Amino acid sequence: MLIVQKYGGTSVANVERIKAVARRVVRTAEEGNKVVVVVSAMAGETDKLIRLAYEVSDNPSEREMDLLLSSGERVTTALTAMAIQALGHKAIAFTGRQMGIITEPVHTKARIERIEADRAKRALEEGYIVVVAGFQGITETDEVTTLGRGGSDLTAVAIARALRADLCEIYTDVDGVYTADPNIVPEARKLERISYEEMLELASLGAKVLQTRSVEFAMKHNVPVVVRSSFNDNPGTLVTREDKEMEKVVVSGIAHDKNQAKITIKAVPDRPGIAAKLFKAIAEANIVVDMIVQNVSSDGKATDISFTVPKPDAKKALSITEGIAKELNAGGVDLREDIAKVSIVGVGMRTHSGVAAKMFETLANHGINIMAISTSEIKVSCLIEAKYTELAVRILHEAFELSKTS
Amino acid sequence: MLIVQKYGGTSVANVERIKAVARRVVRTAEEGNKVVVVVSAMAGETDKLIRLAYEVSDNPSEREMDLLLSSGERVTTALTAMAIQALGHKAIAFTGRQMGIITEPVHTKARIERIEADRAKRALEEGYIVVVAGFQGITETDEVTTLGRGGSDLTAVAIARALRADLCEIYTDVDGVYTADPNIVPEARKLERISYEEMLELASLGAKVLQTRSVEFAMKHNVPVVVRSSFNDNPGTLVTREDKEMEKVVVSGIAHDKNQAKITIKAVPDRPGIAAKLFKAIAEANIVVDMIVQNVSSDGKATDISFTVPKPDAKKALSITEGIAKELNAGGVDLREDIAKVSIVGVGMRTHSGVAAKMFETLANHGINIMAISTSEIKVSCLIEAKYTELAVRILHEAFELSKTS
Repeated sequence: MLIVQKYGGTSVANVERIKAVARRVVRTAEEGNKVVVVVSAMAGETDKLIRLAYEVSDNPSEREMDLLLSSGERVTTALTAMAIQALGHKAIAFTGRQMGIITEPVHTKARIERIEADRAKRALEEGYIVVVAGFQGITETDEVTTLGRGGSDLTAVAIARALRADLCEIYTDVDGVYTADPNIVPEARKLERISYEEMLELASLGAKVLQTRSVEFAMKHNVPVVVRSSFNDNPGTLVTREDKEMEKVVVSGIAHDKNQAKITIKAVPDRPGIAAKLFKAIAEANIVVDMIVQNVSSDGKATDISFTVPKPDAKKALSITEGIAKELNAGGVDLREDIAKVSIVGVGMRTHSGVAAKMFETLANHGINIMAISTSEIKVSCLIEAKYTELAVRILHEAFELSKTS
Repeated sequence: MLIVQKYGGTSVANVERIKAVARRVVRTAEEGNKVVVVVSAMAGETDKLIRLAYEVSDNPSEREMDLLLSSGERVTTALTAMAIQALGHKAIAFTGRQMGIITEPVHTKARIERIEADRAKRALEEGYIVVVAGFQGITETDEVTTLGRGGSDLTAVAIARALRADLCEIYTDVDGVYTADPNIVPEARKLERISYEEMLELASLGAKVLQTRSVEFAMKHNVPVVVRSSFNDNPGTLVTREDKEMEKVVVSGIAHDKNQAKITIKAVPDRPGIAAKLFKAIAEANIVVDMIVQNVSSDGKATDISFTVPKPDAKKALSITEGIAKELNAGGVDLREDIAKVSIVGVGMRTHSGVAAKMFETLANHGINIMAISTSEIKVSCLIEAKYTELAVRILHEAFELSKTS
């Protein structure tokens, strides 16, 4: 088999961890597999570099930021290759460029355009374990780019696709994908399998196991992904195509996300084009809006619009909204950061009705007020007060009987 | 003017130092100059990475070592460019590759083959301050290489040559080149000017101001180099072509080097080819031999051969020598590490006689035994016991009246 293994920051956090990774990689190779290893920067290293950048500049340029951040993976790539060599196995370290990862000319969150994997293929044929720097690529004009937070997952999945690998293993510090955060719900159960669609909802809903774009990519190209721990030999969770078996389960998991802020613009004149104007301005600032709720006020002449954005973007979104409120002579703008989003996810919802109602009822029974709702075919999300997050996750986990194996 | 400025590890050791560098660079630019900045890794960073490499492997591969070490300059290059931008000036950071530094395909101490500086020239024309990662290059086949310890000096001088710069300033933590180490000789005087030849002797003799290869390169291509401090505005020392004025000074400076070890192979049969065999084996191990002394023993049938090598290579050289001693049935091999080399340097020696004699006499007068001597047109070096190093430097500085301005 050809296996791509990706090790995250905690898995290569220090020399001992890197040696443990090397042992696992060599064991995989000695079982008769060809192995490509993708590594992140040592845990904390990327944050340290970002801190340095903000110490020298209030507004560091994105081009130089990419150059700066790409250094972290260079270090772990070289060290991991050395550690594998020290175990007596051939290994070669590749930067993003040497791996042929060509991206679009966008800094800090470039998309991979293609992978020119000839050199890696040759190295694999020659018996090398190939160790690749995650998170980074190069443009056609020789500029260093990075793929955004969690980009090493995408590197691994894209390489698995380019090399037609049989499996892409994402090693992290948790055993796999759980029905809910085990820190909140002790009875949470590790899933053996989950569909790409569900994983995508869980990833974008704040379960930090896999980066969203890597799941999208894996789904699009049907790359089988296993999420497992580098700290033990437990089998992990297979992320794969939806099948009949999965559809029997109504709710697969519960996600929560405290990293959202809610902005409300009050008493906006209720005429066409207002919402468009507001959300266009916010989109132009590259801020992703998640939920939107609009309530027509009792007199029918004005309306309140609420929406949520990621917390780090809240201040920027607030000031844009305030500008527009002034233009519109609206009633004021209000920011709330003490909110959370709780979601239930499952492909079985497509064929089962009453799931949303059960969620609302469960929350209501415990006195939890719902501030906003958004739904898709396979998920229902509710915005609630942040202080109820853990309670909501626990009661929903129980209500949908997620600790029972299907 | 087009000025290349190189800042060493202590000059970019932390955020405050990097900001100070940015201010100096911007000041230079605002005086009407085009500026290229070459930076080293933060002080201590390269050593830290080397330590990590030896923690994961007893024998880290040179290819991966280069990849590892090249990350240090990436960090400072990006941060320095950001700091310059924060002062409101255009700046762009280049890796060795983006600067077009093409080296031979040799790891850990590659030579620069050429610099494809078109991109840098364009950036300068467009008004950018160009910040370049020192110490690193790229081969024709896309491998990352490094230029050896102190290689950032060479990067700076080679770029100065490629761009036909008017001046190459090497910023370090000392004010310039002194007649002797001021820590040993408080009266040591800073030289205003020094010839390439003298600087070369001083550099290779252990005065750590400038890397030897960078001086050779500057001499060959006649690049004017100024050595000065990044911690003050003192004018520094100009390293330039020899002229009439310089020849009037007999001795320009005194260097000392404690980083040598002496190996003696005893009672070697005195027949042709023995020395050749020994030094060929040592050369093949890439160890540079400095001084060689051979004494025919009293009976004329056997000889002792002594030679010096850099201390880090001593163990390796010792084991090679022991192997050859066994083959030759020699009388044994002996390693001494408590030695030092003290040298006087000056282009004036070419036209003044009695300089060496005066050196030997001065040392003898203070009871310092000379173990070996080597000379060139412009220097005399003596090997002495390490404990006499400081004394020897002081008395020679006095004997040649180096604290007096010429």
